[in-house]
Amino acid sequence: MKTVTCTAPVNIAVIKYWGKRDTELILPTNDSLSVTLSQDILHSKTTISASKEYTQDRLWLNGKEEDITKNKRMHNCFRETRALRQKMEQADASLEPLSTYNVRVCSENNFPTAAGLASSASGLAALVYTLAQLFDLDVTVSELSRIARQGSGSACRSLFGGFVAWEKGEAKDGSDSMAVQVAPESHWPDLEALVCVVSDAKKGTSSTEGMQHTVQSSPLMQERLNIVPGRMEGMKKAILERDFQTFAELTMRDSNQFHAVCLDTYPPIFYLNDTSRAIIRLVHAYNSTSPDGKLKAAYTYDAGPNAVIYAPKENMREIIQLISHYFPGQDAATYFTDPYNVIADAPLGQDFVPQDHATFNENVIPVFAPGSVSRLLHTKVHDGPRVLTSEDDSLLNAEGLPKRTV
Amino acid sequence: MKTVTCTAPVNIAVIKYWGKRDTELILPTNDSLSVTLSQDILHSKTTISASKEYTQDRLWLNGKEEDITKNKRMHNCFRETRALRQKMEQADASLEPLSTYNVRVCSENNFPTAAGLASSASGLAALVYTLAQLFDLDVTVSELSRIARQGSGSACRSLFGGFVAWEKGEAKDGSDSMAVQVAPESHWPDLEALVCVVSDAKKGTSSTEGMQHTVQSSPLMQERLNIVPGRMEGMKKAILERDFQTFAELTMRDSNQFHAVCLDTYPPIFYLNDTSRAIIRLVHAYNSTSPDGKLKAAYTYDAGPNAVIYAPKENMREIIQLISHYFPGQDAATYFTDPYNVIADAPLGQDFVPQDHATFNENVIPVFAPGSVSRLLHTKVHDGPRVLTSEDDSLLNAEGLPKRTV
Repeated sequence: MKTVTCTAPVNIAVIKYWGKRDTELILPTNDSLSVTLSQDILHSKTTISASKEYTQDRLWLNGKEEDITKNKRMHNCFRETRALRQKMEQADASLEPLSTYNVRVCSENNFPTAAGLASSASGLAALVYTLAQLFDLDVTVSELSRIARQGSGSACRSLFGGFVAWEKGEAKDGSDSMAVQVAPESHWPDLEALVCVVSDAKKGTSSTEGMQHTVQSSPLMQERLNIVPGRMEGMKKAILERDFQTFAELTMRDSNQFHAVCLDTYPPIFYLNDTSRAIIRLVHAYNSTSPDGKLKAAYTYDAGPNAVIYAPKENMREIIQLISHYFPGQDAATYFTDPYNVIADAPLGQDFVPQDHATFNENVIPVFAPGSVSRLLHTKVHDGPRVLTSEDDSLLNAEGLPKRTV
Repeated sequence: MKTVTCTAPVNIAVIKYWGKRDTELILPTNDSLSVTLSQDILHSKTTISASKEYTQDRLWLNGKEEDITKNKRMHNCFRETRALRQKMEQADASLEPLSTYNVRVCSENNFPTAAGLASSASGLAALVYTLAQLFDLDVTVSELSRIARQGSGSACRSLFGGFVAWEKGEAKDGSDSMAVQVAPESHWPDLEALVCVVSDAKKGTSSTEGMQHTVQSSPLMQERLNIVPGRMEGMKKAILERDFQTFAELTMRDSNQFHAVCLDTYPPIFYLNDTSRAIIRLVHAYNSTSPDGKLKAAYTYDAGPNAVIYAPKENMREIIQLISHYFPGQDAATYFTDPYNVIADAPLGQDFVPQDHATFNENVIPVFAPGSVSRLLHTKVHDGPRVLTSEDDSLLNAEGLPKRTV
């Protein structure tokens, strides 16, 4: 029996992936680019054990057993990694025939799946990365990303830390559709992120379903495909030059354009709600207070109402205070997560009075009802998947069964 | 002294006007097409008197005196109509020299200006139509629409009843940018409308300001300009053939695309709020209950959160009941206006249980807080401006002063 445990991070795109040219192979209609957020705050953890004693594959997701044979996305990742292992075993008879063993997979997110925080990206990245460790695969991370992509498109970007491009590729078989690192997390340590978890009554359209509706029915979508290549170039350059002004404007424009093509879909798809839109207004109002006209923060929204605000470290305190003032929490104990202790001493929520922004209240947005934003997570750009070697970290016990179930 | 009183209707576009190629002459970037709603429900009323005794031009808007010299849009309309009158007087010396007289203008909407119900369109249409009557101008309605256009772009469409196209024209001086009637109101008497006045905490960007931001900053806007001509043709054909299916789909698609380019504007412009979006979802859910797959209703939204729902008469009762169930009123006395008495005997609001749509509640939208929709106005396609001849209808008294002020 061999057991491996890994974690993989969440990534939040600044140039959005929306639309597949091949739904089987998960090949996108356009390049995308994301920022990997710290696993200290948000991650998926996966333990996989392989044993010749196991009589079947078994799977537990967030403490609940599921039928692994019915999970097509996972199946793709197993098939591809096992095939690579099999080749290695064929070439070297001394290797343990792990590719023939049944496996047990146990995976958990350290955040609610329903929160819309790209859990499928981190989840499938953790799965594929753990399989690669289990099978001792001799492949590059980009090659591995090609497999993760077949589990969940944006999972391919969670295999790297820092700033990551997913190149859509041209080949019909998807062989050139993979992730590459634009810059590691160490390149721009000053860039931080604030995740605002926005409460929403209505669960939006799943992104898998939604993006194909857009491809099929939005007349503006084709034009977006002409626009993205220029944005990719601009964004890569901005990252390499640590140019927050360009990074911020492109990030906001691309988030808005993604939601615009969702709205141009027929029937239309909505992910932003009144709270999301108020955060957008607040960020623009905050930027307009900048004496030198420089942007101080940028928002982006995936297929859900949650905002992720990117900003230089020096502005984070101000941003956290502003957001917490206009969108106070309901539960003080869980509202704010700040492992980097940026504003340990600062007043938050209704205790903070934005004196420098006295006109915000009247002209921008009202103070929202407590709980409209349920959580604020202060995080930063960080590393790719990690291998956890301590026995304590394993989600499976010595018998290959989950330590915790629900 | 000569005094004339007229009313002009509101029009609600089904192919949207958004963007000017000339902001001085108000020349649009694309053709648009609207439906004229009944003046029995919504109208602007204007009384103008001209007298050689008057020593200055004076203006009262909704009971409040304003400085007429500071109202550039009105000034344009006065200049153009006076010039036409002057020519007539020069050609025929027996005519009273009305073009040299000062005037008093009193104008009122029978609905709150702030409600975002295209009050500038009906207001400027009423002004120009009244001036044309006052000066006895010998011009076609389309020629007059060219003048109204310079007061407020979409005002040109309120000079006709029925179904009205505003052709953007090509000439630099705007001489071919005017409204034409596609079909009179009598052509399609079966088509009705329900105006849902949606409460909104935040006043959106004015359309005058917003549309130029879109022209300047939305990369998708140029593509919209390529799309509109085909939609105009499709919409005209649908109207002429009374083809509600095409009319409805194009109406919804074009409303969504207009709001999509607003969202693609930088910074983004929002007009739809959570209530607006829930009405969109409800209309699509309602359409999906149609046993033969036929669309039963179509929504459209101008530069504000209010929905206008177009539907064949036979569906109106069901639609009013559904909307009133999910968006009950706060004030029963003013909530529902139904001069055509469609559903005098039907339960409304929370008294109505949508049995045929039992799954709506769970899957589509929750029942909203009372007052999220403050008013429902049931109306229909109707005629263009009317001349009112009764002394009682005049807004000015015998001294040329407003009968009512605030």
